[in-house]
Amino acid sequence: MRLVTFRHQGSVGPGIVLGDDIHEILSHGDIKTALADVAAIKYKDTAATKVDAAELLPPITNPDKIVCVGLNYLEHRIETKRPETAYPTLFIRWSNTQVGHRQALVRPNESTRFDYEGEMAIVIGKGGRHIPADQAMSHVIGYSCYNDGSVRDWQKHTSQFTAGKNFIASAGFGPWLVVDEISDPNTLTLTTRLNGKIVQQSGVDLLIFSIPELIAYISTFTELSVGDVIVTGTPGGVGDRREPPLYMQPGDTVEVEVTGVGTLINSVVSAP
Amino acid sequence: MRLVTFRHQGSVGPGIVLGDDIHEILSHGDIKTALADVAAIKYKDTAATKVDAAELLPPITNPDKIVCVGLNYLEHRIETKRPETAYPTLFIRWSNTQVGHRQALVRPNESTRFDYEGEMAIVIGKGGRHIPADQAMSHVIGYSCYNDGSVRDWQKHTSQFTAGKNFIASAGFGPWLVVDEISDPNTLTLTTRLNGKIVQQSGVDLLIFSIPELIAYISTFTELSVGDVIVTGTPGGVGDRREPPLYMQPGDTVEVEVTGVGTLINSVVSAP
Repeated sequence: MRLVTFRHQGSVGPGIVLGDDIHEILSHGDIKTALADVAAIKYKDTAATKVDAAELLPPITNPDKIVCVGLNYLEHRIETKRPETAYPTLFIRWSNTQVGHRQALVRPNESTRFDYEGEMAIVIGKGGRHIPADQAMSHVIGYSCYNDGSVRDWQKHTSQFTAGKNFIASAGFGPWLVVDEISDPNTLTLTTRLNGKIVQQSGVDLLIFSIPELIAYISTFTELSVGDVIVTGTPGGVGDRREPPLYMQPGDTVEVEVTGVGTLINSVVSAP
Repeated sequence: MRLVTFRHQGSVGPGIVLGDDIHEILSHGDIKTALADVAAIKYKDTAATKVDAAELLPPITNPDKIVCVGLNYLEHRIETKRPETAYPTLFIRWSNTQVGHRQALVRPNESTRFDYEGEMAIVIGKGGRHIPADQAMSHVIGYSCYNDGSVRDWQKHTSQFTAGKNFIASAGFGPWLVVDEISDPNTLTLTTRLNGKIVQQSGVDLLIFSIPELIAYISTFTELSVGDVIVTGTPGGVGDRREPPLYMQPGDTVEVEVTGVGTLINSVVSAP
């Protein structure tokens, strides 16, 4: 099942992708309501729009929490010259940093070091705290693609990544959530392409901290809620660590593909 | 003017403190609506409750953003042995980490290193992006006291403070917002007391990055919204850097006082 949030006839709401079409989900709330009980999802018989013609937003426009995991693939941890850690490196994004599939990523005027980070995102379908790792997968409802776009100089202004990870419209999320189709995420492959050329590629099985470990750790300090997004980390190959560096430029197209999930495509524009 | 969010007859809403009483604010929304246009605030003639008897919540229960500033007093930066930075060190809290005045801070079962950090919080009354420092103060509507409670071992699990700053019910915020009374925050004094004993004290004028500088920096990457909270930093004297260390224990009482603003009082309890 593929779930989207899309704009249709002036309003924003959840939809389900059936073939080439999007059908409006009949619900009393946003996509979180649908995610809390996917078996109860009902949708209109007639299609609202073709997927290719739709204005897609981030699949969840207002997550209660977006937790990003840094340095969670060995090759990336090594290229950043950062030490091994016994715990996952976490930072937070606000939802206004996200754009949807085919919406434009905005390179700020304050930096030319706007970098891609292809990642797989998971979405919580059943909330909870103190979730044991061996029960964690039952709390995951969906998978998506994520571009954790990073303004590298601002990320390195201090020890904390906050500023460089929270520029408005710096991250891509989509095109949809894949629900109830992925039996084992460890079989998936993540690929990032910049202007059609592969710049990152890894099996998701190479995550240093696995999805169950991340959920167990995060739910120790916070209570996860339906619709929370965990962005699991980026593999090696980021532009900032290349020689010469390779940054996203206005006019570029960047894609993040996760096999079995889909391909997130975003253009890059200059800030106004 | 002192504004609160309080529970009354089963519902939560904004109030205004007049003398010893709280009067319900008549509005169509939460306290953010009131903050967006304080001149238009109307309230019930009859008091809802005495301040001392009221159940106060964090003055803003659902800020869009809570930005905390680390290492923003010289004495604290030195005690943490962290280097000088040219930019403010920022981290993010989620709103479920906050409790109100006289609500209990929860020491998690996972740590005994639960530390106080007395701070002054400011609240945004007029949103904006790319706010110049010389216009920043016109975007500040209110002041409050904040205890940026920190689980030190979890804060140091990795380079990022996220986990140790986001335990549920680890921070105190209140007792109220002081609006339109503070002409110059640099004249205020911040004091933290643990069980009645002063453990931190500083003039707010000793902030390394001033309020206007913080707003200018933060609004470069994000758009500030009405009700956003900026927690400006803690002075020297935190428990984790004392010899021997001094942590908050279940049964303790911790107070954060800002002259001209008020005193935030919280007890500390064990997690269930």
